[in-house]
Amino acid sequence: MDITEYELRVRYAETDQMGVAHHSHYLVWCEAARTDHMRRRGVSYRDLELQGLKLPVVDARVRFRQASRFDDLIRVRCWVRDVASRRVSFGYAIERCDDGVLLATAQTSLVAVDSNYVLTTIPPEIRAKLVPIPDPVRL
Amino acid sequence: MDITEYELRVRYAETDQMGVAHHSHYLVWCEAARTDHMRRRGVSYRDLELQGLKLPVVDARVRFRQASRFDDLIRVRCWVRDVASRRVSFGYAIERCDDGVLLATAQTSLVAVDSNYVLTTIPPEIRAKLVPIPDPVRL
Amino acid sequence: MDITEYELRVRYAETDQMGVAHHSHYLVWCEAARTDHMRRRGVSYRDLELQGLKLPVVDARVRFRQASRFDDLIRVRCWVRDVASRRVSFGYAIERCDDGVLLATAQTSLVAVDSNYVLTTIPPEIRAKLVPIPDPVRL
Amino acid sequence: MDITEYELRVRYAETDQMGVAHHSHYLVWCEAARTDHMRRRGVSYRDLELQGLKLPVVDARVRFRQASRFDDLIRVRCWVRDVASRRVSFGYAIERCDDGVLLATAQTSLVAVDSNYVLTTIPPEIRAKLVPIPDPVRL
Repeated sequence: MDITEYELRVRYAETDQMGVAHHSHYLVWCEAARTDHMRRRGVSYRDLELQGLKLPVVDARVRFRQASRFDDLIRVRCWVRDVASRRVSFGYAIERCDDGVLLATAQTSLVAVDSNYVLTTIPPEIRAKLVPIPDPVRL
Repeated sequence: MDITEYELRVRYAETDQMGVAHHSHYLVWCEAARTDHMRRRGVSYRDLELQGLKLPVVDARVRFRQASRFDDLIRVRCWVRDVASRRVSFGYAIERCDDGVLLATAQTSLVAVDSNYVLTTIPPEIRAKLVPIPDPVRL
Repeated sequence: MDITEYELRVRYAETDQMGVAHHSHYLVWCEAARTDHMRRRGVSYRDLELQGLKLPVVDARVRFRQASRFDDLIRVRCWVRDVASRRVSFGYAIERCDDGVLLATAQTSLVAVDSNYVLTTIPPEIRAKLVPIPDPVRL
Repeated sequence: MDITEYELRVRYAETDQMGVAHHSHYLVWCEAARTDHMRRRGVSYRDLELQGLKLPVVDARVRFRQASRFDDLIRVRCWVRDVASRRVSFGYAIERCDDGVLLATAQTSLVAVDSNYVLTTIPPEIRAKLVPIPDPVRL
């Protein structure tokens, strides 16, 4: 449960004229995997926002190793790298399901802000559910 | 001033593996042109939302005649087709700047809703600025 | 098998500041459902393109009835409306899984073009697999 | 000419339910600025691809400092950070035009590949036009 495996299929709209998935979509996939990971850990991001807590991304890095293509089944592995009172970082390994080839790695850091977009603290009961683990792959 | 000409350049991220701009982006371009058209008519859509009025799209149609490609300069001509107490419709002609070729036509209808997403009336002073004209091209 | 039910979850990146899924994404969802429908009927769109046949969208219409929100589970029902030698039309009903509410209906028409983007014929063996049915809902 | 200033307006479709531009779009904006920078330096990326040379992004990092909002006028400053035989890196500073506030910084690295997606060399005449400068801001 420390690592969530989130699967998706590359959409046609996500390809570009290079014939591969456009690099900006990897951040969208990571976000979908992160939401799923939080859900599995008992944290509904949707509910967090309804309660007035938002987690905007403040830092994002993606390293692209192999391209992914239309209709490829992709698996995004997602885990917590680090958590502090106001900040949480996630790691991602994006793989092709077919042959397990590592396509990309990524990391994003998010901070907690309130409804007025002012820095705030991640509630302890949320933080307790976001347990960091060592990176399973080199990011 | 009845027709706004809004120019944009096709972004790489907007292409797909067919080597042309993906059809879903035309709705985004129409929206950008519509926002610009309203601004030129004295209606800031940003301010409308701050005042609690939203205009969600309830009907959209696009007819694609010619493809557009990466780096093409595109002109979206936008006008009001029809306005009623709770609904306003816009028309669009999307052309390539280079040679004036008509790439697509589109129409969208929007309704007024309040902050709770309940149907409401377009304020008369806004409506007065959204003057419909006959379609300059067949949609 | 005449109607494919394709499920997806609304991504955060697909929402807009109105707090709902942006209308342009419905076309992307329809496309994903259409690809899936074709696959289930024995037609891999990926392979079609590798063989030099493309099916660009030439007409798209979406009617939005209810908004969808972040994290909503959505079901896109997709079917063939009509097929001719060079053109095929699909219908879509987009529903919220939770309560079955119809969120939107859509229709798209696609034409067959070759690698040079010249109109061509849908191969008979492909066409035979794209069997039209009467619309199960009013579009 | 060493730094290109590329302006854009935040589109409605680029916002998310947090009420700000979604972080994934910054990569799209950087790409548009990069294409423009190359054009001003005499390199048409469109022509490069037509000649069989592609420059996929292999590494991307964005640091987000302040949010941008719908309808904000944004300026992306773009420059070359480093160029080698097969790789070129760009830096970006994304600012709000209104008050010059720095919203984000970014860096991307691209490699040269041929039509078969095999690593290749950036032609010397292209490389000569991509002159690196020291970062004008801390990335």
